[in-house]
Amino acid sequence: MRGVVMYKPGDVRVEERDDPRIIEPTDAIIRLSATCICGSDLWPYRGAEPVDHQVMGHEYVGVVTEVGSRVHTIKVGDFVVGSFFASDNTCEICRAGYQAYCVHRVLMGALGTQSELARIPLADGTLVATPGHPAPDLIPSLLAASDVLGTGWFAAVAAEAGPGKTVAVVGDGAVGLLGVLAARHLGAERIIAFSRHADRQALARYFGATDIVEERGPAGVDRIKDLTGGLGAHSVIEAVGTQEAMMQAIHATRPGGHVGYVGVSHDVALPGNELFMSGVHLHGGPAPVRRFLPELINLIWNRTIDPGKVFDLALPFDRAAEGYDAMDKRAATKVLLTL
Amino acid sequence: MRGVVMYKPGDVRVEERDDPRIIEPTDAIIRLSATCICGSDLWPYRGAEPVDHQVMGHEYVGVVTEVGSRVHTIKVGDFVVGSFFASDNTCEICRAGYQAYCVHRVLMGALGTQSELARIPLADGTLVATPGHPAPDLIPSLLAASDVLGTGWFAAVAAEAGPGKTVAVVGDGAVGLLGVLAARHLGAERIIAFSRHADRQALARYFGATDIVEERGPAGVDRIKDLTGGLGAHSVIEAVGTQEAMMQAIHATRPGGHVGYVGVSHDVALPGNELFMSGVHLHGGPAPVRRFLPELINLIWNRTIDPGKVFDLALPFDRAAEGYDAMDKRAATKVLLTL
Repeated sequence: MRGVVMYKPGDVRVEERDDPRIIEPTDAIIRLSATCICGSDLWPYRGAEPVDHQVMGHEYVGVVTEVGSRVHTIKVGDFVVGSFFASDNTCEICRAGYQAYCVHRVLMGALGTQSELARIPLADGTLVATPGHPAPDLIPSLLAASDVLGTGWFAAVAAEAGPGKTVAVVGDGAVGLLGVLAARHLGAERIIAFSRHADRQALARYFGATDIVEERGPAGVDRIKDLTGGLGAHSVIEAVGTQEAMMQAIHATRPGGHVGYVGVSHDVALPGNELFMSGVHLHGGPAPVRRFLPELINLIWNRTIDPGKVFDLALPFDRAAEGYDAMDKRAATKVLLTL
Repeated sequence: MRGVVMYKPGDVRVEERDDPRIIEPTDAIIRLSATCICGSDLWPYRGAEPVDHQVMGHEYVGVVTEVGSRVHTIKVGDFVVGSFFASDNTCEICRAGYQAYCVHRVLMGALGTQSELARIPLADGTLVATPGHPAPDLIPSLLAASDVLGTGWFAAVAAEAGPGKTVAVVGDGAVGLLGVLAARHLGAERIIAFSRHADRQALARYFGATDIVEERGPAGVDRIKDLTGGLGAHSVIEAVGTQEAMMQAIHATRPGGHVGYVGVSHDVALPGNELFMSGVHLHGGPAPVRRFLPELINLIWNRTIDPGKVFDLALPFDRAAEGYDAMDKRAATKVLLTL
């Protein structure tokens, strides 16, 4: 089968790899219907994380072609969606809704799902079958559910977005934009998106943003204060992962408000005294996407939400390298790779 | 009147000061029934915070002697308890339960309540009257409600201590010990107190601790993991404010669990990546004690809880300097100053 390998920063290739096989009796093999490139794939691409001949990809949707002897609920022929952590969905941590920390979790990025086929560990716990085989135009949205939608949704839930709330969103990448969508669906009254890019501003408004703020850092915080009677937002989604973005999120939140942070943290050190004096709630980390998948699939299936709109470039799988380049240059928000 | 002044680190004196007067029409004057020394008073005493001829004290209970023209609910003769932030209790932040961040807040420590009389700003919002004049043995408990009990209670609420939960408490000072009491009252199933001091261990057990752990840092975290099937505690109270204590609290919490931190933060920088990967909820800061005062007063009045037990040394007011010295040397957990 073909799969994407990152040789070194900036060097992405599509290569022939061995077809995956069932290793554990709880595994399934899927044939991917589409795959995609994640904003977090840009960290190694840009040299901000070490990388050396790494198989890539952790987002996936597709059709089950084989199951292990101890897979009982997922069947060959099912169309399935999974998350970037495989999880048993039965341990105490999973039952509490934190499947990204399952005691048996497997990081899918280590297996690499930018590929034609993929082995999915803990298939019964990890995979959620759709009601049937989806119409082709639903596939991008279902693929978004695998990570960026689930992550933006978790951020909005962690930030306690809901009726009567003013929600601010730091980060106008796919996750931030889908955080806007999530906040809208959760009933937020006002949604303020930080963005300087006209196309992303337009998508933020499409997903439900009521206000756009172009300023960043302290000036951005001042604008949020201006818009909230000096108090700050009730809920702030952080979807970048830098020091500036985290401090912008914390300072834009009113005392007692909630920051939901899902940008993969890079070189961040939170000053204890500022955090203490802020009085905010802070919650985030790798999103337990599995918690939300049944609901998200249902909303997509019923065409209540259309998160697939974050894919603004689709390329044939063999042109994955062009996709990385486009996202690196911010020429694309998120790239779909068709199979 | 007499009042405590800290001239410089290690130099505390009881001096004659001008009697306070009504300045704003929303002020009240109270005659204190007792006052006390706070663990946070030790930061400047030890030179860890700047101090120069500073009036001291922010905990207080007493009898109202005078009210301003715009004080309507608090009356002369009332026995009252207040918190270390005066608050209007009507602004949007107060109504959300975050009175320590009231838009009109006044820091009581700047006024100094280690004194015979004190001016209380925003009296109607700040003060809560007891049902009558208390029996003398209830006064220490009511004074504890003013800060250390209210702060420990907030920490337990922020950590979401409750039925079925395992709660760990970092810090065996008055706040940590009363965090144990709060966790017990909130219904926690298991309460693990970190402490190396026999007398504090005994008090922790009296307040409801089911387990004591003497190890600290990574070894202390390992003990919590051992006691919780490898998962970590559901809820951890942090009542110290140092880097080691914060990291111990975060690492002792299971993914999806809650850290309630109330130790005044000193030289803390939280590593973003560790926090991100921990998956915990973090909430804390200066406690909105006012939120809890009516309930705490009721529990004390009915003798359901006896937080006054944290006072293990009572001294006449004129011997305040001895009290600071005893707390600095950890010869006393918390010192009551009698008037």
